[in-house]
Amino acid sequence: MAPSSQRLSGIFTPNIVPLDAHGDINEAELRRYVDWLIDKGVHGLYPNGSTGEFLRFTVEERRRIIEIIADQTRGRVPILAGAAEANVKETLKACEAYHELGCRAVAIVSPFYFKLSPSAVYAYFKEIGDNSPIDVTLYNIPMFASPIDVPTVQRLAEECPRIVAIKDSSGDLPHMMRMITAVRPLRPDFSFMTGWDAALMPMLLIGCDGGTNATSGVVPEITRRLFDLTLLGRMEQARDLQYRLLTLFDAMIQNCEFPEGFRAALALRGFKPGSGRQPQSASQKLEVDILRNQLQCMLSAEGFVDEPVGGCPAGKSNPEPDDVAKIVQGVVEELRRRGLAK
Amino acid sequence: MAPSSQRLSGIFTPNIVPLDAHGDINEAELRRYVDWLIDKGVHGLYPNGSTGEFLRFTVEERRRIIEIIADQTRGRVPILAGAAEANVKETLKACEAYHELGCRAVAIVSPFYFKLSPSAVYAYFKEIGDNSPIDVTLYNIPMFASPIDVPTVQRLAEECPRIVAIKDSSGDLPHMMRMITAVRPLRPDFSFMTGWDAALMPMLLIGCDGGTNATSGVVPEITRRLFDLTLLGRMEQARDLQYRLLTLFDAMIQNCEFPEGFRAALALRGFKPGSGRQPQSASQKLEVDILRNQLQCMLSAEGFVDEPVGGCPAGKSNPEPDDVAKIVQGVVEELRRRGLAK
Amino acid sequence: MAPSSQRLSGIFTPNIVPLDAHGDINEAELRRYVDWLIDKGVHGLYPNGSTGEFLRFTVEERRRIIEIIADQTRGRVPILAGAAEANVKETLKACEAYHELGCRAVAIVSPFYFKLSPSAVYAYFKEIGDNSPIDVTLYNIPMFASPIDVPTVQRLAEECPRIVAIKDSSGDLPHMMRMITAVRPLRPDFSFMTGWDAALMPMLLIGCDGGTNATSGVVPEITRRLFDLTLLGRMEQARDLQYRLLTLFDAMIQNCEFPEGFRAALALRGFKPGSGRQPQSASQKLEVDILRNQLQCMLSAEGFVDEPVGGCPAGKSNPEPDDVAKIVQGVVEELRRRGLAK
Amino acid sequence: MAPSSQRLSGIFTPNIVPLDAHGDINEAELRRYVDWLIDKGVHGLYPNGSTGEFLRFTVEERRRIIEIIADQTRGRVPILAGAAEANVKETLKACEAYHELGCRAVAIVSPFYFKLSPSAVYAYFKEIGDNSPIDVTLYNIPMFASPIDVPTVQRLAEECPRIVAIKDSSGDLPHMMRMITAVRPLRPDFSFMTGWDAALMPMLLIGCDGGTNATSGVVPEITRRLFDLTLLGRMEQARDLQYRLLTLFDAMIQNCEFPEGFRAALALRGFKPGSGRQPQSASQKLEVDILRNQLQCMLSAEGFVDEPVGGCPAGKSNPEPDDVAKIVQGVVEELRRRGLAK
Repeated sequence: MAPSSQRLSGIFTPNIVPLDAHGDINEAELRRYVDWLIDKGVHGLYPNGSTGEFLRFTVEERRRIIEIIADQTRGRVPILAGAAEANVKETLKACEAYHELGCRAVAIVSPFYFKLSPSAVYAYFKEIGDNSPIDVTLYNIPMFASPIDVPTVQRLAEECPRIVAIKDSSGDLPHMMRMITAVRPLRPDFSFMTGWDAALMPMLLIGCDGGTNATSGVVPEITRRLFDLTLLGRMEQARDLQYRLLTLFDAMIQNCEFPEGFRAALALRGFKPGSGRQPQSASQKLEVDILRNQLQCMLSAEGFVDEPVGGCPAGKSNPEPDDVAKIVQGVVEELRRRGLAK
Repeated sequence: MAPSSQRLSGIFTPNIVPLDAHGDINEAELRRYVDWLIDKGVHGLYPNGSTGEFLRFTVEERRRIIEIIADQTRGRVPILAGAAEANVKETLKACEAYHELGCRAVAIVSPFYFKLSPSAVYAYFKEIGDNSPIDVTLYNIPMFASPIDVPTVQRLAEECPRIVAIKDSSGDLPHMMRMITAVRPLRPDFSFMTGWDAALMPMLLIGCDGGTNATSGVVPEITRRLFDLTLLGRMEQARDLQYRLLTLFDAMIQNCEFPEGFRAALALRGFKPGSGRQPQSASQKLEVDILRNQLQCMLSAEGFVDEPVGGCPAGKSNPEPDDVAKIVQGVVEELRRRGLAK
Repeated sequence: MAPSSQRLSGIFTPNIVPLDAHGDINEAELRRYVDWLIDKGVHGLYPNGSTGEFLRFTVEERRRIIEIIADQTRGRVPILAGAAEANVKETLKACEAYHELGCRAVAIVSPFYFKLSPSAVYAYFKEIGDNSPIDVTLYNIPMFASPIDVPTVQRLAEECPRIVAIKDSSGDLPHMMRMITAVRPLRPDFSFMTGWDAALMPMLLIGCDGGTNATSGVVPEITRRLFDLTLLGRMEQARDLQYRLLTLFDAMIQNCEFPEGFRAALALRGFKPGSGRQPQSASQKLEVDILRNQLQCMLSAEGFVDEPVGGCPAGKSNPEPDDVAKIVQGVVEELRRRGLAK
Repeated sequence: MAPSSQRLSGIFTPNIVPLDAHGDINEAELRRYVDWLIDKGVHGLYPNGSTGEFLRFTVEERRRIIEIIADQTRGRVPILAGAAEANVKETLKACEAYHELGCRAVAIVSPFYFKLSPSAVYAYFKEIGDNSPIDVTLYNIPMFASPIDVPTVQRLAEECPRIVAIKDSSGDLPHMMRMITAVRPLRPDFSFMTGWDAALMPMLLIGCDGGTNATSGVVPEITRRLFDLTLLGRMEQARDLQYRLLTLFDAMIQNCEFPEGFRAALALRGFKPGSGRQPQSASQKLEVDILRNQLQCMLSAEGFVDEPVGGCPAGKSNPEPDDVAKIVQGVVEELRRRGLAK
């Protein structure tokens, strides 16, 4: 059976791209990270996703990222390559390039910035679906891009055999069920992937095939185990793990600018992610410092790292002293902004 | 007085880029369009804006657009060049290039896709403001990009002399007043431009310096006259013109995908804008056809073009027969989508 | 053990109130409906909820509804009585009245119309929690009323023993998990009820105690069975039922003004709900007519009623001929509105 | 000319209702307040509006408020009485009662809590418009209630002579222009009132007839003068006043729970508004304390009251020491909430 006939499933990691001191791609670290992720058991890799900050790289860098990952992976796991470019023509060029590199499929985010109507979203993906040489995954992330509604997914699934999956990061469970209801009878091969780690277990239980989950880039052991336990029907253990994953996910996503929380956690796992390309204000850097301590406590509770110097608060994942520090620092920052402190 | 010391003011046109049959930049038509706009009296040009679909061009094409326009303009009017690129480093490269081409300033949209906090928006523009060799206009368009709030504008105006203006497309009049209240005492040279044609007259009356208005790309005579009449305090005439501009603006912006309505209107003014790069569905093409007829009636009522074959309805800018056609075609399209009609 | 010491759990029905030809409460029908619901196995009743259109009744009518239901129920199942009135003083009077009528608890929706801050929402419920003679359920429905955030729920749970539960109709699964994480360690007796039928099974799986689900007012057999199967861990059957319930729920909630779809379905189950108090336009009445036919097909597929005259389409729950009728009627209505048809 | 044939215009005050120590209507103070407002020159009164917290009073109290005001006014100015009740039947009863009391018209807010479609909003007002014995003003406040869109206003204006005005609190200037464009040709007698003080001058300049503005309840001198100056075309003075009104409006509306800021300001003008019926948390009370000081400085700068003890900061309407106090208190409150301070 050819790779392209296998249904997409399992946990795909939307990887961060490590950067060096000049802000350039740190190829050696990226390769080491890829090996680590595969060793830890993720089912596939998903470079050039939102977590991978595809938009903050140049066209040439996006290509280079896929080249490195394809070369390093050497077929051990399938690659789902983010391929959205400036327009349909450029996107199709990327599809061709990633096809030649042996990627399993591309993922293409719905047009963003301009808010498109469902009719325009359809036209965009129809053009791509009709001309891509490689399987296409629709990528719905309504908080950032034009939403892909259920009738549009259904119509594209009916008309374009090359479109084989949707990655949905809305976190809306009934929406996922509506898509499955509309598409699965027509296209049993069509795959449904969730991008919302906070609801991975319930999404799998109502029929999703897997997830492209940012947590799998920093705690692949947990995300993978949650997937396995859920499929085995070991509900108690899966539920417990989903709660722990939610706490980690919230810490990384709510306390600082996305994806800085994931970058900080990756550093704790022994990698050198480098500084992101989006400049950080003093208050943002402080937020990340506080978060790093919290994350270290969480990760040490899971047995992945040592406790931070100074230890962790007992029995609670939200260490209160840090909260205090954060509040106080917030005040200082605020006073400074108003010229009332230096 | 050097050009860079003149405060930005007046009507700047966010121009569409004409495309040829292959979807490439139609340089000859773009040059002809630039001349026409200058002849019609716009105070400046604003290429690579949202109306100019900056995101749908490649990096190289965005540079080429500015080159052509700078060359064709030859200093007759100032150029405000959209310069946002993938990250701060690339954006600063664009700032340098546009500085060398003699542009008056750059306009940089707030980071989009990822929704940034005020603190992160500040850090982004601070980095640019501290390093750009050319004056910078902040571009706030909260329906598409991370919002730039009042304290952030104030802080940037205080700290970065290179940041000289804000273009605000929110259409929120009290918000504009709040920015003016916060910034003008500190920076009398700072300019406030509105990007919301629907409220141009009121925005000027509460103190804006001008506008970057898409309508000025298709009816520069009206937008310019509205600016002049408002500044002259001829309120009755200005109000009448603002109502007429609103009707035109609404027709172009509400009835089809942005900026297709402006493209259709430009064709009626005698230019060849070509097809946009975003694929259009059958129903979208139909919408544009219907809109074109309405626009021709509106523009003929203003004396810019002939009436369409078949004439226009008397005394009304919304021709009812077209409405009927639109509704009926909508049904047919809908039935077709559901497989109930061919 | 006294009733008030039992933790709230199971399926509570937010019942519609049948009206007679004059628009007054149809007491006989309401009593018959209560008996039917109890016979069908719902665990409790929840009068004066959103589905019960509490806002469209007068103060006196809201009291009368609880009196009738308390009298008819005679302790067979617990009553959760909606008790929100114009202000805290009036709400506390209602709490006292429902306490004397033997209700199990009251449910109090967060203040609506004015959008309150978390601090004000806290102050409101704190006042009620400190003074109510009867157990209180917080009611969070952010699409209609001021949201109750996680820290507010936690603080109220800590400070007010009288507050014993939250009914959450946001449908946001991770939000429910965050509340459970924050509150359960402090208050093991605190109950979490979901008001979003579309995600009942997943909500129960992550730890909810039950639901106040509008579908249980029209297909109590299904909602109750879904609850039982989920608790028994019979996942395949539960999932199938959740998908069927979602289809029914969507039909009732998306195709017409809430709660008219539930009223139409109730009529199909053999009750006389009467016309609602909110006036209906011609197009709305048409929508309900079309929906009624669809619902009858759905309910006949479940074995609850006969097929409608003319039969149902095979193998599909969305009968296409009705869709056609609906579209065509939509056109006619639209033409009429524009004065182009009579 | 009978009162009902006069077009609604000018500044109508949406008055707060003073409460006594028991939280009951303070009739004497309300009468004194009415006299003061009329003396200060407001054109009309608008009791039972949002500022008047209509929802937090009982049915009987709402009636009593109108009785007192009608009795005290004795025809000196017209009364626009808020008349929305639980349902159409109850609302029509209120219309009759207010008609008998000699009110000029009623204002009826669009249905709230439940979010109604345009078709349902139409049906609601159509029923009222066809049966009210008194002129009706539509009340559009989309941040709190179901929006009334332009086609709905147009249709109601066409079909219901009893509907004579719209009060729009959206603050959306182009929206107001669209309504005027759609309705004025058909109904020259139809009146357009803005409820958004922040844009009163621009709204009047594009054709509004007046406003129902909460600021006129605390600084009637300013709101009235802004109205007069704008109509006289004295643009410089009007603009200056609009900026000052915006600063006051923002202070009262942004720094605490609506309408507590207006209550605090009213106390500074020498009235006893009493405590509101919505309970206040400690942090809310603190906010109001800080705001009171700021307001006193603003009002003293306008010459209405003395400076607060301790004086006001020079040359700035936002006294920084208070900001500091506020920030610090915010921290203390936050620490207290988390159990880290007492």
